[in-house]
Amino acid sequence: MSGNTIGKLFTVTSFGESHGKALGCIIDGCPPGLEISEADLQADLDRRKPGTSRFTTQRREADEVQILSGVFEGKTTGTAIGLLIENTDQRSKDYSKIMDRFRPMHADYTYQQKYGLRDYRGGGRSSARETAMRVAAGAIAKKYLKQQHGIEVRGYLSQLGPIKAESVDWSVVETNPFFCPDQSKVAEMEDYMNKLRKSGDSIGAKLTVVASNVMPGLGEPVFDRLDADIAHALMGINAVKGVEIGAGFDCVDAKGSEHRDELTPEGFTSNNAGGILGGISSGQDIVAHIALKPTSSVLIPGKTVDVDGKATDVITTGRHDPCVGIRATPIAEAMLAIVLMDHLLRHRGQNADVNSSTPVIPASAEEH
Amino acid sequence: MSGNTIGKLFTVTSFGESHGKALGCIIDGCPPGLEISEADLQADLDRRKPGTSRFTTQRREADEVQILSGVFEGKTTGTAIGLLIENTDQRSKDYSKIMDRFRPMHADYTYQQKYGLRDYRGGGRSSARETAMRVAAGAIAKKYLKQQHGIEVRGYLSQLGPIKAESVDWSVVETNPFFCPDQSKVAEMEDYMNKLRKSGDSIGAKLTVVASNVMPGLGEPVFDRLDADIAHALMGINAVKGVEIGAGFDCVDAKGSEHRDELTPEGFTSNNAGGILGGISSGQDIVAHIALKPTSSVLIPGKTVDVDGKATDVITTGRHDPCVGIRATPIAEAMLAIVLMDHLLRHRGQNADVNSSTPVIPASAEEH
Amino acid sequence: MSGNTIGKLFTVTSFGESHGKALGCIIDGCPPGLEISEADLQADLDRRKPGTSRFTTQRREADEVQILSGVFEGKTTGTAIGLLIENTDQRSKDYSKIMDRFRPMHADYTYQQKYGLRDYRGGGRSSARETAMRVAAGAIAKKYLKQQHGIEVRGYLSQLGPIKAESVDWSVVETNPFFCPDQSKVAEMEDYMNKLRKSGDSIGAKLTVVASNVMPGLGEPVFDRLDADIAHALMGINAVKGVEIGAGFDCVDAKGSEHRDELTPEGFTSNNAGGILGGISSGQDIVAHIALKPTSSVLIPGKTVDVDGKATDVITTGRHDPCVGIRATPIAEAMLAIVLMDHLLRHRGQNADVNSSTPVIPASAEEH
Amino acid sequence: MSGNTIGKLFTVTSFGESHGKALGCIIDGCPPGLEISEADLQADLDRRKPGTSRFTTQRREADEVQILSGVFEGKTTGTAIGLLIENTDQRSKDYSKIMDRFRPMHADYTYQQKYGLRDYRGGGRSSARETAMRVAAGAIAKKYLKQQHGIEVRGYLSQLGPIKAESVDWSVVETNPFFCPDQSKVAEMEDYMNKLRKSGDSIGAKLTVVASNVMPGLGEPVFDRLDADIAHALMGINAVKGVEIGAGFDCVDAKGSEHRDELTPEGFTSNNAGGILGGISSGQDIVAHIALKPTSSVLIPGKTVDVDGKATDVITTGRHDPCVGIRATPIAEAMLAIVLMDHLLRHRGQNADVNSSTPVIPASAEEH
Repeated sequence: MSGNTIGKLFTVTSFGESHGKALGCIIDGCPPGLEISEADLQADLDRRKPGTSRFTTQRREADEVQILSGVFEGKTTGTAIGLLIENTDQRSKDYSKIMDRFRPMHADYTYQQKYGLRDYRGGGRSSARETAMRVAAGAIAKKYLKQQHGIEVRGYLSQLGPIKAESVDWSVVETNPFFCPDQSKVAEMEDYMNKLRKSGDSIGAKLTVVASNVMPGLGEPVFDRLDADIAHALMGINAVKGVEIGAGFDCVDAKGSEHRDELTPEGFTSNNAGGILGGISSGQDIVAHIALKPTSSVLIPGKTVDVDGKATDVITTGRHDPCVGIRATPIAEAMLAIVLMDHLLRHRGQNADVNSSTPVIPASAEEH
Repeated sequence: MSGNTIGKLFTVTSFGESHGKALGCIIDGCPPGLEISEADLQADLDRRKPGTSRFTTQRREADEVQILSGVFEGKTTGTAIGLLIENTDQRSKDYSKIMDRFRPMHADYTYQQKYGLRDYRGGGRSSARETAMRVAAGAIAKKYLKQQHGIEVRGYLSQLGPIKAESVDWSVVETNPFFCPDQSKVAEMEDYMNKLRKSGDSIGAKLTVVASNVMPGLGEPVFDRLDADIAHALMGINAVKGVEIGAGFDCVDAKGSEHRDELTPEGFTSNNAGGILGGISSGQDIVAHIALKPTSSVLIPGKTVDVDGKATDVITTGRHDPCVGIRATPIAEAMLAIVLMDHLLRHRGQNADVNSSTPVIPASAEEH
Repeated sequence: MSGNTIGKLFTVTSFGESHGKALGCIIDGCPPGLEISEADLQADLDRRKPGTSRFTTQRREADEVQILSGVFEGKTTGTAIGLLIENTDQRSKDYSKIMDRFRPMHADYTYQQKYGLRDYRGGGRSSARETAMRVAAGAIAKKYLKQQHGIEVRGYLSQLGPIKAESVDWSVVETNPFFCPDQSKVAEMEDYMNKLRKSGDSIGAKLTVVASNVMPGLGEPVFDRLDADIAHALMGINAVKGVEIGAGFDCVDAKGSEHRDELTPEGFTSNNAGGILGGISSGQDIVAHIALKPTSSVLIPGKTVDVDGKATDVITTGRHDPCVGIRATPIAEAMLAIVLMDHLLRHRGQNADVNSSTPVIPASAEEH
Repeated sequence: MSGNTIGKLFTVTSFGESHGKALGCIIDGCPPGLEISEADLQADLDRRKPGTSRFTTQRREADEVQILSGVFEGKTTGTAIGLLIENTDQRSKDYSKIMDRFRPMHADYTYQQKYGLRDYRGGGRSSARETAMRVAAGAIAKKYLKQQHGIEVRGYLSQLGPIKAESVDWSVVETNPFFCPDQSKVAEMEDYMNKLRKSGDSIGAKLTVVASNVMPGLGEPVFDRLDADIAHALMGINAVKGVEIGAGFDCVDAKGSEHRDELTPEGFTSNNAGGILGGISSGQDIVAHIALKPTSSVLIPGKTVDVDGKATDVITTGRHDPCVGIRATPIAEAMLAIVLMDHLLRHRGQNADVNSSTPVIPASAEEH
């Protein structure tokens, strides 16, 4: 509860630093009887893994996950699941030059202020390397949601710097290194990234995650609304600076008569709400968008101060992602899946007596 | 924890429906010795109160708060503070015609699906009337933060439909019915709202909240980052569909070399981060923006279904806000203050041994 | 979560001091559709109420509870239930003489040390008056458990000072002012209490609470075992200094071959475990015992210090219970019911897929 | 939060089964700057370790703990600490004969009912092997409490079956295999245990844990009283069936005029309260006692049923402790230390403004 745990009934608690011995997490509250193996987790870990294309950091990590507990004869037992990934390619020497100064836009400064000391190797606990465990935990949630309820949690890159995906073809997403759903933009993105990498700079990105076939009823009034918990989970991903549900900021300039999703016996006529009304899932697709900032670890020198507050500068020569958004799609999916699992368990705990298996209206087919 | 509680050390738990007997909340974890009276809370309640201008709902509620416990001889005792506001102007008859159908874009449908029954009077628990208690609780947090640490939590309307505030003059915010910080836009907003009201429609809005003089160090890795908890608190406000920290979605198209806030002995050179790095406060102003959707309760008839799924329509004749964003400024301030209080208590619980009273660098003066 | 909340899915958060304006609580997570009215709660409140016999404090409190939210047309809606009891007979003047000194064995000293100030009127927040709200909340849990699952939560006084109940006849419990289940001891207890009252002294007591018809499977490994959570809930009742499950401390001198409850197709052969194995309910009766200390508020003067640490003495002339254990039976029942509700909701949240409606063996009939 | 986590600010989350690959835990909220190494944890682990005398199970486990994160250059960083112990001596074949039947008084039956399946090897998650992680986590809490505040957390065996320790000499506790504080009883205990082992039976025990030099003020009203949280932590230890604070069940037959601990300028005159008043520490020694049941795993055959509910019998031939209480002293110390750490952090979070460094009166010297 001190910060490294998320969820109430389905909880994930994690540990591990960028250059420590290992990363790990404990998943508590997973229903028993789910068939699960390392291979189930590895698939998503490989999607997030560094070094898979020239557009991501060249750090080499196998990210091989071990299941240490909670699974017996191939099935979850309902008890705590312990996961472990050992760090292999640590190269701590890359980071020795930043031990006495703060990288701008990183957590170096704030960790030092908060704790009075910090593990400066690769950002220590604040490194996005920690998200590997989220992906592993999320893979368990995704499998349960899919298998037991047909819920599918997927994501894509909706914008890379200035380049927007203008159509969504799910079959394209996994065929390019960007998780871009619009085949017509892939070449443009490759070209953009090649130029960016040569310039030594970095760029932001926008991602979209979607959960389909979610039953109505997930989410709690008043503070633990489903959208509030999704915002918490997504804003908690490294580099995320904005979260939208459904139409998001477009609603600022919208009129109520146009913005409202009307109900018909055939389903909702639109999905500006992003599948959530009053903090509770409506049965429509749950749709969220996130903005990821460009990493400040660039080859262009920047001003900073050292631990004594004296002016100095910083330049990044280590291995970094020119667009951290690219590898974030599996992370965002994982976080959405974890939130949905938690709310599914909470909902059926409180509302087991309610006979609402059949929604009043179907969710209509709509574009995301 | 089932949804009506927020916070870990400084917690707020609330109850109450739009047309029930009363609203109330319990504030747990408030430090002892704080001078507090009903008048301290009433000031913010009056800012949120309906019926104060012709641009808000004409429902009349005095919103008079009573402190029932936790304060002795004018000071907090450190024990649970109970607050109560009785509902006076209930007019339940206004709502009888919606008992058998679902208002689009409201929680009617999802509450019915989740619980199998619902208090249909004015939206019951899902009504924004519940936010009165948040404002009352937030007023206590605001007073403590201000008095003990000089932290100021303030907000304003940054956009009303198509009209953007282009400058921020804090002295203007409380002098107009919109909480608009740009005097040059007030007349335009009045004109816009008058036309909107006549057309029977509603409009969205964007708000900004700022916390100044926050010490570095608030926020927890990994999941309970300060920005993640702010996103949770703000997305949990009725009608909010988007949350940004600092530059927010503008970072999608930004380059790392430009976006990064550099550090100098005189302070940070910019505040794209919105005062939070790695989930921990940096000492700069904490800046967040939210998007509020237009209410769907408009005079223009809309399609919907009844509780049996049959097609029907709905028109709103009750009293509603044409722009729910207008009254939301005090609510957003309250939520930000509650999150900061909670993280302040958590931080000093864990890090009491750390001698970090003096930040390494000052926060520079920057515009919000 | 800061101390005034209990439970994870079914939570109770309370406020209120002995001589403040009112007591209240919020019950969150109650399943929807339960028929509930003030009368349901009042029955148990009246069992706990002071002044019902000459063996309890003569303070007069009607303890009339109001349901302020969460119930619509006679049924719970699934949203937060707010309860309120106004204090009527406050007589603050009785307590003015203890404002500057600490009553031994009360919380006066520790509250002063913790918070630096305290509401000295009748013990303020530390008064057992606060338990009225627990009883009201517990009544809701008891009704749900009984109605939906046939679970019955009951208690009795098993020992009053030196006098032990030697048989348990549930039909006797409510027919005497002690909740004594052994009719043959009632006259002895009356006699004992009359003499005690004249001597100006007080006495301890032991209570037993039993939950019957509990399904197997409630409770969580490792820390939130059902017995651990019951111990938490019961030790948290004012004046309780010991908690036993099943055979309790008798197991210290017991041999494994005799102590173990064997399993047969007809049920368990004994219930030394008190209905809980490995922290999880077995289907047998859940049995717990608690020890309540004698109140130190007696007519015999005692030594103490004032707020400056100087020697003084204290004598109680206000209205107090000569045996606080007598009125505690409804409180202990309420706490047990609250814990069971919470674990029922948690269990069915995680284990909805498990088909275990039929226990492998029946719970045998055993004496409590 | 689903059961495998304890604490609110200082939290311990654990995983691992008796015969799985490894045990592990995550400690969250540990203050930064504490010097800690594997050796600090190993000392207590070795005290709990099986196979150290002929009076405990002959299972051989090195119980070598690894610190995987949260410690940098020998000091805690304030971030999550990951611990791991690999299982080495698993001998799963010992347990194959109990896969289809339930050992009486073990969790076999209740896990099967709850989850629909179970890891039957050595009790799986319900095995006391899991407590190794509690001891490791507790060692960190103990070191912090001792180093920063001089708080000492210690324990001893106060009764072994019929044999009571009649005096407490702390210097004797670690010199015998029973943690017995009374040298005059050690030979008697050895003799008793030798006979017991030959008879193939097992016996219960009573332990006492004491925390000295605790500052006044730890603990929260109303539900999270320090004694309530201690009861939760201690009752959650495998085989514990009773918990007492201070005089415990002796208070049932005590009079208020005798039982009350009076206050004098020199300190309290007695410690029947066990160092806790109104749920808050008083500055006196915190004293708790626990009852541990005899293990039902004995060489004498017992009746049980198989997974289909048919009558069968069970006999234990594996390696087991004839008195599980013997090895439980380090576990009980660990749990007490964890609770104190958590409440210390919570207290200073809320009450940082209170100037109460000097208690009003000293805690007097008293025997435990």
